[in-house]
Amino acid sequence: MKRAVVLLSGGLDSATVAAIARADGYEIVALTVIYGQRHHTEIEAAKRVAAQQGIGLHRFVTVDLGAIGGSALTADIDVPKDRKESEMADIPVTYVPARNTVMLAIALGFAEVAEAEAIYVGVNAVDYSGYPDCRPEYLEAFQALAQLATKAGVEGGTMRVAAPLIHLRKDEIIARGQALGVDYSITHSCYDPDSEGRACGRCDSCSIRLAAFARLGIPDPAPYQ
Amino acid sequence: MKRAVVLLSGGLDSATVAAIARADGYEIVALTVIYGQRHHTEIEAAKRVAAQQGIGLHRFVTVDLGAIGGSALTADIDVPKDRKESEMADIPVTYVPARNTVMLAIALGFAEVAEAEAIYVGVNAVDYSGYPDCRPEYLEAFQALAQLATKAGVEGGTMRVAAPLIHLRKDEIIARGQALGVDYSITHSCYDPDSEGRACGRCDSCSIRLAAFARLGIPDPAPYQ
Repeated sequence: MKRAVVLLSGGLDSATVAAIARADGYEIVALTVIYGQRHHTEIEAAKRVAAQQGIGLHRFVTVDLGAIGGSALTADIDVPKDRKESEMADIPVTYVPARNTVMLAIALGFAEVAEAEAIYVGVNAVDYSGYPDCRPEYLEAFQALAQLATKAGVEGGTMRVAAPLIHLRKDEIIARGQALGVDYSITHSCYDPDSEGRACGRCDSCSIRLAAFARLGIPDPAPYQ
Repeated sequence: MKRAVVLLSGGLDSATVAAIARADGYEIVALTVIYGQRHHTEIEAAKRVAAQQGIGLHRFVTVDLGAIGGSALTADIDVPKDRKESEMADIPVTYVPARNTVMLAIALGFAEVAEAEAIYVGVNAVDYSGYPDCRPEYLEAFQALAQLATKAGVEGGTMRVAAPLIHLRKDEIIARGQALGVDYSITHSCYDPDSEGRACGRCDSCSIRLAAFARLGIPDPAPYQ
C-alpha cells in the first residue's frame, strides 16, 4: 500500500486532509510539528484525531521557532480579536515566519525515512490569503524543491506535495469532511484557548470557523468558552 | 548596513562562509540549527567561530530530527570509517533526510524576523556530491521557494540564497578562508569526536578535510585524537 505523510495539527483542516488522503488510497503516517506554540491544546487535538482515524504511526517533532521570535503564536504579542473579515486580508501578526516551509521540510525528511511518496498538507489559499506560504505558487515551488531535495527523488522516485484544500472555502472543507465521516468535535482551531482548551470564539481562526459552520446551518461541535 | 543570515555549524565550511559574507559587505547574524546531533562539540565550535568573527547576534534553534530517525548523525547507526574517496560517491548513511531543507527553512524564518536580505550557507557540491541537497539545482529551487515563501518577498523585497562554496574543492575553500583570516584551529568537522571534542581523523568528513590540508602542504590546526 502506498504511504503518505499527513501534517496533522489537530485543526479542522488537517483532520479533513487526513480523511482525504485515506480516501485517495494511502496508508497514512502522521506528523505533528510542535513549533513553540504557547499552548499544547493542539497537540492533544492532533492525538485525538490520529487515534480516531486509526493512524498507526504518529510522530512529533519539536522545533523551537520561538528562538527566532516574530509572531503572536510563538512570542509575547497579543492575538487580535473581533476583526472583520475585510481586516484579515493583510498579513496578520499571527503569521509565523516560514512556518509552512519548516513544517514541510520536516515532513519531507519524515517522508523519506517512512518511504512515503506523498505529503498531504491542509494549507488553504481562500481563508488565509494573507499568508505568503499558503498560496498555490508557493506549494508548486515546494513540490519542485522536494523532487530535488531527496534521496528518493535523486534515485528516480517522486515526492508529491498534495494540498487538497487549497481552493476550498472553509464551509466547503467542512462539507467535504462530513461526507468522509470526520468528527469535528475533537478538532481545535483557536489561537487563544483557555486553560481547559476551549476556543475563544473571537480570534481570526475561530471567526472563520464559526462563520463557516453558520453558513452550513449546523452548530460547531467543538467546545467554546 | 545590509544584513545576512549565516548558517553556522562550527565547521570549516561555515566559518569560511561567514568570512565571505562579511567580505561581501554584510552585517552578519548567525544561526546554528541543532538537529539532534549526538554530540555538542559542533555547538561549542559554532560559538567560538561567532565570537572570534565578532558576530553580535547568534541564535540557536533546536529541531528534534532524531524523532524521525534515518541517519547515523541523529540515530544509532555506526559512522563509517576509513572509506576511500571513490566509496564516498554514494549517498552515505550520515545523510540526514532533508537536513539542508530544514536548516534553510529555519534560516528563512530568521531572515524574515531579522530583516536580512540574504542567507549564506556552506553547502558544497564537490566533496558532497552524494547528498541530494548539496547540488546547485537544489539551491536554485530553494531560492525560488524563498522568494515566494516570505512576507518580504510578497511585499516586493528579495531573499537571496548564497552558497559561495558550492563549486570549490575543500583545499580551495581553505585557501579562500586563510586569505580572509579564518582561524581553522577552532573549527570542528568530525562526525565522531571523542569526549574531549577531538576529531577521529577517519570518518568521511575528517578524511576530506585532512586530504585538503595535505594538498595545500600545511598542517590542520584542529585537535585530533
